[in-house]
Amino acid sequence: MQQHLPGIWRLTFGEPELATPVSKRYHEPDRAGLASLPVPNEAPFTLDRITGQKITRGFVVELPLGATEQIYGLGLQLLSFNQRGMKKTLRVNSDPVVNLGDSHAPVPFYVSTAGYGVLVDTARYATFYIGNTQKVRDRHTGSLVSDQASIVFSTQDLQDRRPHEDESTVTVEIPVAAGVDIYIFTGPTMREAIQRYNLFSGGGCFPPRWGLGVWYRCRADFDQQQVLQLADSFRADEIPCDVLGLEPGWQTHSYSCSFAWSGKFLEPRRLADALTERHYHMNLWTHAFTHASSPLYNELMPYAGDYEVWQGLVPDLTLHETRQALGRFFAHQHVDMGAAGYKLDECDNSDFNSSPWSFPELSHFPSGVDGEQMHSFFGLAFQETVDAIFREHNQRSYHDVRSSHALASPYSFVLYSDLYDQRDFIRGVVNSGFSGLLWTPEVRHAESVEDLVRRLQTVVFSPQAQINAWYIKNPPWKQWDRQRNNADDFSPDWAEVQAICRDTLRLRMRLLPYLYSSFYRYTSEGIPPFRALVMDYPGDPNTWMIDDEYLMGDRLLVAPLIAGQKSRPVYLPQGTWHDFWTNATYTGGTTIDYSAPLTIIPLFIKDNTVLPLALPTLHTADPQSLLLDVRIYGEGLLPITLIEDDGLTYDYRRGRLNKVTLSWDAAAGLGSMKRDGDADVPYYSINQWQV
Amino acid sequence: MQQHLPGIWRLTFGEPELATPVSKRYHEPDRAGLASLPVPNEAPFTLDRITGQKITRGFVVELPLGATEQIYGLGLQLLSFNQRGMKKTLRVNSDPVVNLGDSHAPVPFYVSTAGYGVLVDTARYATFYIGNTQKVRDRHTGSLVSDQASIVFSTQDLQDRRPHEDESTVTVEIPVAAGVDIYIFTGPTMREAIQRYNLFSGGGCFPPRWGLGVWYRCRADFDQQQVLQLADSFRADEIPCDVLGLEPGWQTHSYSCSFAWSGKFLEPRRLADALTERHYHMNLWTHAFTHASSPLYNELMPYAGDYEVWQGLVPDLTLHETRQALGRFFAHQHVDMGAAGYKLDECDNSDFNSSPWSFPELSHFPSGVDGEQMHSFFGLAFQETVDAIFREHNQRSYHDVRSSHALASPYSFVLYSDLYDQRDFIRGVVNSGFSGLLWTPEVRHAESVEDLVRRLQTVVFSPQAQINAWYIKNPPWKQWDRQRNNADDFSPDWAEVQAICRDTLRLRMRLLPYLYSSFYRYTSEGIPPFRALVMDYPGDPNTWMIDDEYLMGDRLLVAPLIAGQKSRPVYLPQGTWHDFWTNATYTGGTTIDYSAPLTIIPLFIKDNTVLPLALPTLHTADPQSLLLDVRIYGEGLLPITLIEDDGLTYDYRRGRLNKVTLSWDAAAGLGSMKRDGDADVPYYSINQWQV
Repeated sequence: MQQHLPGIWRLTFGEPELATPVSKRYHEPDRAGLASLPVPNEAPFTLDRITGQKITRGFVVELPLGATEQIYGLGLQLLSFNQRGMKKTLRVNSDPVVNLGDSHAPVPFYVSTAGYGVLVDTARYATFYIGNTQKVRDRHTGSLVSDQASIVFSTQDLQDRRPHEDESTVTVEIPVAAGVDIYIFTGPTMREAIQRYNLFSGGGCFPPRWGLGVWYRCRADFDQQQVLQLADSFRADEIPCDVLGLEPGWQTHSYSCSFAWSGKFLEPRRLADALTERHYHMNLWTHAFTHASSPLYNELMPYAGDYEVWQGLVPDLTLHETRQALGRFFAHQHVDMGAAGYKLDECDNSDFNSSPWSFPELSHFPSGVDGEQMHSFFGLAFQETVDAIFREHNQRSYHDVRSSHALASPYSFVLYSDLYDQRDFIRGVVNSGFSGLLWTPEVRHAESVEDLVRRLQTVVFSPQAQINAWYIKNPPWKQWDRQRNNADDFSPDWAEVQAICRDTLRLRMRLLPYLYSSFYRYTSEGIPPFRALVMDYPGDPNTWMIDDEYLMGDRLLVAPLIAGQKSRPVYLPQGTWHDFWTNATYTGGTTIDYSAPLTIIPLFIKDNTVLPLALPTLHTADPQSLLLDVRIYGEGLLPITLIEDDGLTYDYRRGRLNKVTLSWDAAAGLGSMKRDGDADVPYYSINQWQV
Repeated sequence: MQQHLPGIWRLTFGEPELATPVSKRYHEPDRAGLASLPVPNEAPFTLDRITGQKITRGFVVELPLGATEQIYGLGLQLLSFNQRGMKKTLRVNSDPVVNLGDSHAPVPFYVSTAGYGVLVDTARYATFYIGNTQKVRDRHTGSLVSDQASIVFSTQDLQDRRPHEDESTVTVEIPVAAGVDIYIFTGPTMREAIQRYNLFSGGGCFPPRWGLGVWYRCRADFDQQQVLQLADSFRADEIPCDVLGLEPGWQTHSYSCSFAWSGKFLEPRRLADALTERHYHMNLWTHAFTHASSPLYNELMPYAGDYEVWQGLVPDLTLHETRQALGRFFAHQHVDMGAAGYKLDECDNSDFNSSPWSFPELSHFPSGVDGEQMHSFFGLAFQETVDAIFREHNQRSYHDVRSSHALASPYSFVLYSDLYDQRDFIRGVVNSGFSGLLWTPEVRHAESVEDLVRRLQTVVFSPQAQINAWYIKNPPWKQWDRQRNNADDFSPDWAEVQAICRDTLRLRMRLLPYLYSSFYRYTSEGIPPFRALVMDYPGDPNTWMIDDEYLMGDRLLVAPLIAGQKSRPVYLPQGTWHDFWTNATYTGGTTIDYSAPLTIIPLFIKDNTVLPLALPTLHTADPQSLLLDVRIYGEGLLPITLIEDDGLTYDYRRGRLNKVTLSWDAAAGLGSMKRDGDADVPYYSINQWQV
């Protein structure tokens, strides 16, 4: 069996469909990145143990599953973590309140603790049976009961008759298809298998520096003046914020869009300029369903599916011409006006909605793709449409999107959901890293001050620090209750709550250099910046079920508290860990019970870490955000490499980037900073070393 | 277009699959019954407006949907009622906690207030889009925006551009299939369309008289002695009860079954005899998955699917040989031992379970049916397996089953679910009548005395008065809390609660003659004994959304209260209605607010009804249960016809049946009883006339 790419095997069964995630890919594999990974000569298991079979309903693939293997991934699974024993159908859907596999971003890719990943290259709603089916044994010989038809069996008898645990399988059923390509990604470790998948996808995304700052979406009906008032109030209240999200109001026709600025924002360019002046980046809400009132309507008509959504066309974004048409319009009308990014809403599906609104799976699109496939493709194709605009402007960007799929890692888009359970939101952070996805556990409203602060703490330790206040007039720290907030009825203790929230957001700003370099490893090495513990410690069975702790980068373990919890169990993997807040030291390999007051999110730093913390600023354009306090944990034996570039363009790809390594010499009690590169970009500098 | 049967049109599109509900039917249509319905010459709409199309994913059928038509049915939909605007995928599943269409008993049949029904003859998981899709309009001319590409439209403009409401469709997508048969059932009214569907199915079922009495399932681990103690305690406590359900314990091997009596019941025949002596009927729990320890295992092996469930075989019950093998064994081992019926558990599917346990949809069965089709067929085929045993014994029976499908009305099987929301359970009673199904909102445990009594009231006004105490030791009226119940820790007020429950169960016994004759209309005319208001009043828009009131028979409107409600709105259709409890009179066509103390379930009697109430007895074998108090409402202008037969066998089909009509002469103030027939069966007689 030949390798398709280093450490990647492709197995073709039957006659695969024409339209698949790989065949429709927009990014080439990062071959250089792949070449830098260790390459085993052998597949993770004997590949001829994988079988494929055409059945009436479609195509079935069976893969071996070892006795102790644990399986993760399948996209943004908000309601489950370890997938062994589950049956999951990867349907695209918003608001999936049950654990059937439906997801904003189902991804037919899973990874095993045995150190490999499997991509089933299909845009169909494939069903994965993960070690929970068993074929009839000894069908022809009947040997199980050959010589004893009596009804009494001892327990031992029964045990002897049970199959060996290691005879299990992952069985994947792909509807409609007459064949499928399976890609096997080797490790040797699970994390390396994921890296390989992400590099195969084209590498991880690298957001602009401002994208990692604080995001705030204004109330949907805010006009120009209200947006600017809010922008000014954040500066006055010393609330860090880099991005303001707003609703342009072009969906007011039956909810499908014109994409043309409405009366809400009469001078969009002036608004954008005023925001830029105040160091804000403007993010625009939109979806893709095109109303008859849109100037694009006639142009898109030949490129639309045969069913409407909200009386609007569904553009076939898998076609280059369609993306070009929409992209051109967005570029001229929005990006040239100053838009720095989008929130791509409603691009998933709506079976869980009480009035399902999206196009049916039986739809037909001009590209030949049907509605089922289009639901899988739509979110990513929409991302590509928008991303291409900014790439052509040599402008990095960071966006929100409500749907994604396989091979998504190159896209600087963060998933979100209208669901709102904080445990599920934390699980989203933990899970998304298995599948090349990013996820924000955004804060909207809260049930209490405690709920607000706990949610904000989680959001600050996530790919995107999003406060989505689209239905409240005032920031939630002034009043967490939605109705009172909209009545301008502030909490008596709002100033105190605001101070807590300000400190929480400052923590985000302080961690930006560390986070930014973690994202650089995502783009260059495919290592997800946010990871389940099991991804780094697959050999430790204690990590196999932990879906409420995660790593941010290599050095930081986050164990969020949720409202109602005064303390929580925290599992610390092997090694020594340091409490970020108290500097207390813990020996890992055990579960501790950790209590924390409201202002504290449990954070643990890996032993020997050199941890840079920026001075907290109100936005990333402030040069002070490059001034570092460097904390030394343990002996400081693990230097850290930070990334310097312009933070805005793709010039880093052409070498306009420095790597800055911070090291600690424990014996001398001295820190040092070593700059590799001489790019003319803003430099980090040291404020102080903190032992 | 020719009629297939009187008032039934069959339209064939493409090449229908071999295995469908109609092709696999076990009962012939009731041609005599069908002939007795009014037969229109014309189809309910121009049938050539129905179109069919093969697509890659399967087959699509589009049917017209009028502007004001309301759509009901699609089987046991516990979470929705009026289906207009919905998208439903008819997957077989237990515990469907979301409104996606999953159901223990999905039925691809719907009815319209316009007075017709549609059966899509498929065992596939078809998706129904009911008036919630819209094809792109003016695709080729682009006339919508022809001369105005401007972005500003007035509301009126938008209105003008909207499609006419009556251009909507019901679109049905059938996976895999290359064609499908569609059956259209005319009314002229919705109820007659349903009657026609039920008669096409073979007519409604006619349970034995004892089946309509009170059912009680014992705690699962009760042995022979405990069962008999409980049986005796009910007689001592004067609790009406006709059926005791018990678990034979043959599923103790990995949960698949041996079907052989276990050590729990060492003398099953003696137990059955002892129960018969006490006038109880014995109902046995089972499922169909066959463990290697079963004497049937080797015999079933060639007739099993290729996947196991709980290490047991899945017998292909769509095959005659398989049903024969299982049926023979059940007949000899259980029915000949005295079993009067079964509870057929686990015959659905398990996607909502945290550990999905059932056979995969990709399974293959010897009949050529795949797992998806088998899930649709399995429940009904299991019913046929069991029903055939009793038919061959000329013994009517009544059972529980957890899955069903199309053409189910001839089966004396009542659906149940492990879900437990009382509103949903009431909706189940209301909905099941649209689809040839019966449903019990069984009582298990309760949150309070109020919850217990309110649930019991609903259950008493349902097809099967089931108390399912499988996890409590003592009757719930002695202690509603599960844990305390099992600790024999009775409520201080248990005697009082028991008295309320006894009275509630007595009400069931009093209504038996009325209910029995309502079931006779089900078997002979196809009229469901339990019906949504809209089924009898489709022209009244006030009934279109009422999913918490229903008719029992023709004369009785039930509006259950649930715990926490002191009163509720009750919509009374056109006409005069009488309060069962107070004799107060209401003029219909309006919604009243009805308050009721705990002991009262709101019940309204149609004006002019002659309503027979039996003397309350402890079981149906008591001759007193044929002694009637006859209540006269209004002028008593609506005589009622009761059914006399042996209550046990199918002899009524050969004429061993009398129809007894009770009439009231208001002028004379005299009631009369007229017996049509001279069958030698137990006779009703009058205790008193109550004006």
